[in-house]
Amino acid sequence: MFKATVLTLFPSMFPASLGQSLAGDALSKGIWSLETKDIRDHGIGRHRVVDDRPTGGGPGMIIRADVLSEAIDAVSHSHDTRPRLVMSPRGIPYTQSFAYELSKGHGVAIICGRFEGIDERVIEGRNLIPVSLGDFILSGGEIAAIAILDSIIRLLPGVMGHDQSGNEESFENNLLEYPHYTKPRQFEGQDIPEVLLGGNHQKIATWRKEQAEFITKKMRPDMWKKYQD
Amino acid sequence: MFKATVLTLFPSMFPASLGQSLAGDALSKGIWSLETKDIRDHGIGRHRVVDDRPTGGGPGMIIRADVLSEAIDAVSHSHDTRPRLVMSPRGIPYTQSFAYELSKGHGVAIICGRFEGIDERVIEGRNLIPVSLGDFILSGGEIAAIAILDSIIRLLPGVMGHDQSGNEESFENNLLEYPHYTKPRQFEGQDIPEVLLGGNHQKIATWRKEQAEFITKKMRPDMWKKYQD
Repeated sequence: MFKATVLTLFPSMFPASLGQSLAGDALSKGIWSLETKDIRDHGIGRHRVVDDRPTGGGPGMIIRADVLSEAIDAVSHSHDTRPRLVMSPRGIPYTQSFAYELSKGHGVAIICGRFEGIDERVIEGRNLIPVSLGDFILSGGEIAAIAILDSIIRLLPGVMGHDQSGNEESFENNLLEYPHYTKPRQFEGQDIPEVLLGGNHQKIATWRKEQAEFITKKMRPDMWKKYQD
Repeated sequence: MFKATVLTLFPSMFPASLGQSLAGDALSKGIWSLETKDIRDHGIGRHRVVDDRPTGGGPGMIIRADVLSEAIDAVSHSHDTRPRLVMSPRGIPYTQSFAYELSKGHGVAIICGRFEGIDERVIEGRNLIPVSLGDFILSGGEIAAIAILDSIIRLLPGVMGHDQSGNEESFENNLLEYPHYTKPRQFEGQDIPEVLLGGNHQKIATWRKEQAEFITKKMRPDMWKKYQD
């Protein structure tokens, strides 16, 4: 079983979409498990304070190193071999190959930041891997954690039917996918490209590859460059 | 009011995390509204079929152009000026500047793909903008839609306090953020960097800029290149 642990100030945000559809079915089947840990359980004093002003000034509040490390220790002891990710715009950009790598392990612990961020010293002190979902800012790490878990869960053995796994290729060979068509043959004056209707598998494969190359070149020059290398 | 419409096969996946915390408060205050449209309402026949096999062969199922376009027309008529996004790994990579742009409009309609994808002809037929959250594959577009809405909502007037808006800079000047520290002064033998404790604002600003440059150079050579230009 793949063991996911999420540390958050908003435990009620889970499992959310992970409790439904593909991920939800896999959760019911025991293919993965989800544990949430409320960081506030380890807050200081009667008010369970978890954050303080940034040293040196600046806006926002920073999650304290002592509070967060205690919360981590409560759910992931020092012998826990699962990678510990912390969601952060400053992290390693998340990719499909990272998802594959994580899906081959025993599980993952994900720390969701809020406010301005977390005290830098926890990153070293608890071997956290800062990971970024992309170059945009979310109100907190929770939604990013849900996205990452979803991307991992669908890769776990027994989750996807054979039929669903077609679009893996997208990021495996640095080519975006070719365009898809289905019935009806005519849609508001637009026809399905002739070649797809002909039944010549060789021609179809060639057309699809050309389309994939065209769209990659147009939409993602960065990926196109890697593909050509 | 910012009007969000989401077209999905899993309407129960909303509002999920968008009903809580920052986005949830803004929803209660009427700063934005959320409408979900079940694509299956426009499915064909007694079984409300929404998809079919890809023309020309291949794995998976494709959402039909006629079904999806009817669902779109039901919630976004031809005079609707809101951008219509469709979540797709083949789309424009989503960024913070895209979030800003969307947050300045009247709203957005987001189409969540499932299965192998949607019939290409709807994209042209209904002026859809394919958008990708990143180079990873999710079980469906719903989680991506939630991430995008969250990133927009936090930028709407009245949602964030002045104090929360500090980390905007991250992607504005192509520099990642400097590291943060807060109390306690010592954490497991790690000190807060001396300069932050000194109270010299000029020195603090210089140190933070150097740190931001260092981390950008190390973590994101792509961003570093843009910063230097």
